[in-house]
Amino acid sequence: MAVGQTDFPNMPPISGIQIGTTNAGIKQTVRDDLLIFQFSETATCAAVFTQNAFCAAPVVLARENLLQSPRWLLINSGNANAGTGEQGMVDARQTCDDLVQITGGKMQQVLPFSTGVIGQSLPVEKIKNALPKAVSNLAENNWENAARAIMTTDTFPKGVSKEISLNGETITINGISKGAGMIQPNMATMLSFIATDAKISQPLLQQCLSNATELSFNRITVDGDTSTNDACVLMASGCSNAPQILAGSENHTLFSAAILDVAKALAELIVRDGEGATKLMRIVVSEASSDAEAVQVAKTIAHSPLVKTAFFASDPNWGRILAAVGRAGVVEMELEKIRLYLDDVCIVRDGGRAADYTEEAGQAVMNQAEIQIGVKLGRGDFSQTVLTCDFSYDYVKINAEYRT
Amino acid sequence: MAVGQTDFPNMPPISGIQIGTTNAGIKQTVRDDLLIFQFSETATCAAVFTQNAFCAAPVVLARENLLQSPRWLLINSGNANAGTGEQGMVDARQTCDDLVQITGGKMQQVLPFSTGVIGQSLPVEKIKNALPKAVSNLAENNWENAARAIMTTDTFPKGVSKEISLNGETITINGISKGAGMIQPNMATMLSFIATDAKISQPLLQQCLSNATELSFNRITVDGDTSTNDACVLMASGCSNAPQILAGSENHTLFSAAILDVAKALAELIVRDGEGATKLMRIVVSEASSDAEAVQVAKTIAHSPLVKTAFFASDPNWGRILAAVGRAGVVEMELEKIRLYLDDVCIVRDGGRAADYTEEAGQAVMNQAEIQIGVKLGRGDFSQTVLTCDFSYDYVKINAEYRT
Repeated sequence: MAVGQTDFPNMPPISGIQIGTTNAGIKQTVRDDLLIFQFSETATCAAVFTQNAFCAAPVVLARENLLQSPRWLLINSGNANAGTGEQGMVDARQTCDDLVQITGGKMQQVLPFSTGVIGQSLPVEKIKNALPKAVSNLAENNWENAARAIMTTDTFPKGVSKEISLNGETITINGISKGAGMIQPNMATMLSFIATDAKISQPLLQQCLSNATELSFNRITVDGDTSTNDACVLMASGCSNAPQILAGSENHTLFSAAILDVAKALAELIVRDGEGATKLMRIVVSEASSDAEAVQVAKTIAHSPLVKTAFFASDPNWGRILAAVGRAGVVEMELEKIRLYLDDVCIVRDGGRAADYTEEAGQAVMNQAEIQIGVKLGRGDFSQTVLTCDFSYDYVKINAEYRT
Repeated sequence: MAVGQTDFPNMPPISGIQIGTTNAGIKQTVRDDLLIFQFSETATCAAVFTQNAFCAAPVVLARENLLQSPRWLLINSGNANAGTGEQGMVDARQTCDDLVQITGGKMQQVLPFSTGVIGQSLPVEKIKNALPKAVSNLAENNWENAARAIMTTDTFPKGVSKEISLNGETITINGISKGAGMIQPNMATMLSFIATDAKISQPLLQQCLSNATELSFNRITVDGDTSTNDACVLMASGCSNAPQILAGSENHTLFSAAILDVAKALAELIVRDGEGATKLMRIVVSEASSDAEAVQVAKTIAHSPLVKTAFFASDPNWGRILAAVGRAGVVEMELEKIRLYLDDVCIVRDGGRAADYTEEAGQAVMNQAEIQIGVKLGRGDFSQTVLTCDFSYDYVKINAEYRT
């Protein structure tokens, strides 16, 4: 079940970024569950990680290795290697070492990522045995396989591709992401891998990524739970013919905007595939006194089980939205100034139900699969958008039956 | 569906506190939906109210009238009179005036309370027409009827009774409460009414109530949503033969403890009747560096949809509990110091799964209807307990079908 799912897009190869996948038997299915990225020597790499205090062993190691000029990403699905203590660190290092035994290079040049069940030991032998096949598969035209290899409860592979022109030369940006539950990225993101052939320094690349994730992955939520394993990586191979992107240049502006576009599109795909989702809700809080206040109100609505179940039922139960705004913790908020909209239909004005509101108009909006909830606070000029999905029987079913 | 529901207790009359109920047709059922409390002239009355910024009209009026020596509570279920703008205030005042037209007294001596659907006009005519019958029913031995008249999605009436002896004289404390969804009382409580025949000044009574609610109603959550209409009232008729309770006396200590006991028991009944609940979870966070930190960690666990669905499935999926602790926002928390328990079974120690943990032992605890989740943070000496329930198909069903 997914809201307005689109077909996997055509994703052209990115020069200098090779991808290899295979089935290592971690998930006990026939699907690929092991994925390697290999970059050219000219590449730079940026990453952001979960802020969960108990981040997984691979996150700890990837954060350490990020500034060692990484050449490889080693990713498995089916096992999170989280809550695994000191052995988890040993295991993560072991798999990095196993990879460079085949490819050459130093194990510090490998960034490991894991996603799946928390609290079980990483099956290092299975990974070791599968690595030769994944390495032998390395090719630039392998993006859809990569998107499929990182799926867990996802119902479709998530990819976005975009081209921009810098000084007449084409730059390609490809991104893939996974995630459907345990989704409230916090100053970081879900597992997402974005690659480009642009030439750009690591610090500038990191800045582009940090800005983009704040306004994309950090503005979505499925269930308010923040994973121990969230990470987003941006790789730039430097293999395009376009000139180096320099800080403050027009090309920098164009490139940053394109990265943000890709990140937003990938984030939206995660919400569309939210566990059990039947509706996509775009919560736009405006006239706030700060960005933080707008996000706070939007997330309080987005996390309300009562709001989410009402949307599942296509019930224009605006009292629940209003109650959520009221408990968002904003000081000195005045009900009389609030206006509440479902798409263009004004529901609340002057402290109560808008005089011209009709249940029929509200119901017509609620029957749609994609709905904008607009909240105008009447306090200032700041505006932020948070995406979420509804809460259905299937959310309960998926999470009652699946061992995260 | 309720967890470990008990029969309604025998609740003796409280001298000086009369109760009248009737069906006013607000809920369109045959159940009583209108309730009046009438106190003796010697009575004092304390109350706490929701901190939701958009509190309902009756809450605004009750807060205003609290210090006017109230003699009556006027309570309806089926309509919250919230999100109703200026008309809501006019309607709330009108019903108070309608009551004193029958009973005598001033309308400022009436505290109004409403619970039910948000955003619909209060049916003042129906209430006016039903008031004479409710007044004619006034009697001291009417507690079960009162508990039933305030129910909305509750599946059973909630009552607690306790007697204590002060200087050889018996003091009786009776309490009733309602609530099953939109439950995360914030510095206040759900609708709850507690009465006693003790003699005690209003300021001291208010202090007893504020202390008790903080450690009882403010320590429960069903879905993290805070109602616009929460209120808890403590009435003391002063009709017992025990001496006046004075600040700092031994009787004050005994009385405060008894009020806290009653409030805790009423709060627990609300969680047992949590919408769709099949399990009661008692989350005990200890070794925290402050009470606030302990509550913060406990509530993050209690609000996690992933934890709640795992408990519904009786799945000892401790990775989700650990992930929730990790995202609770506690600074410089160390995974290595955390110990996690299900009842007496230690699951996590030394940064990972406890060496002696077995899935069988975890499963045995999870199969129970009532489970204690213990989290030792290794940071200090503070400890707090939060009660919650699981998230089931029925929670979704109830809230997809019911217009709050």
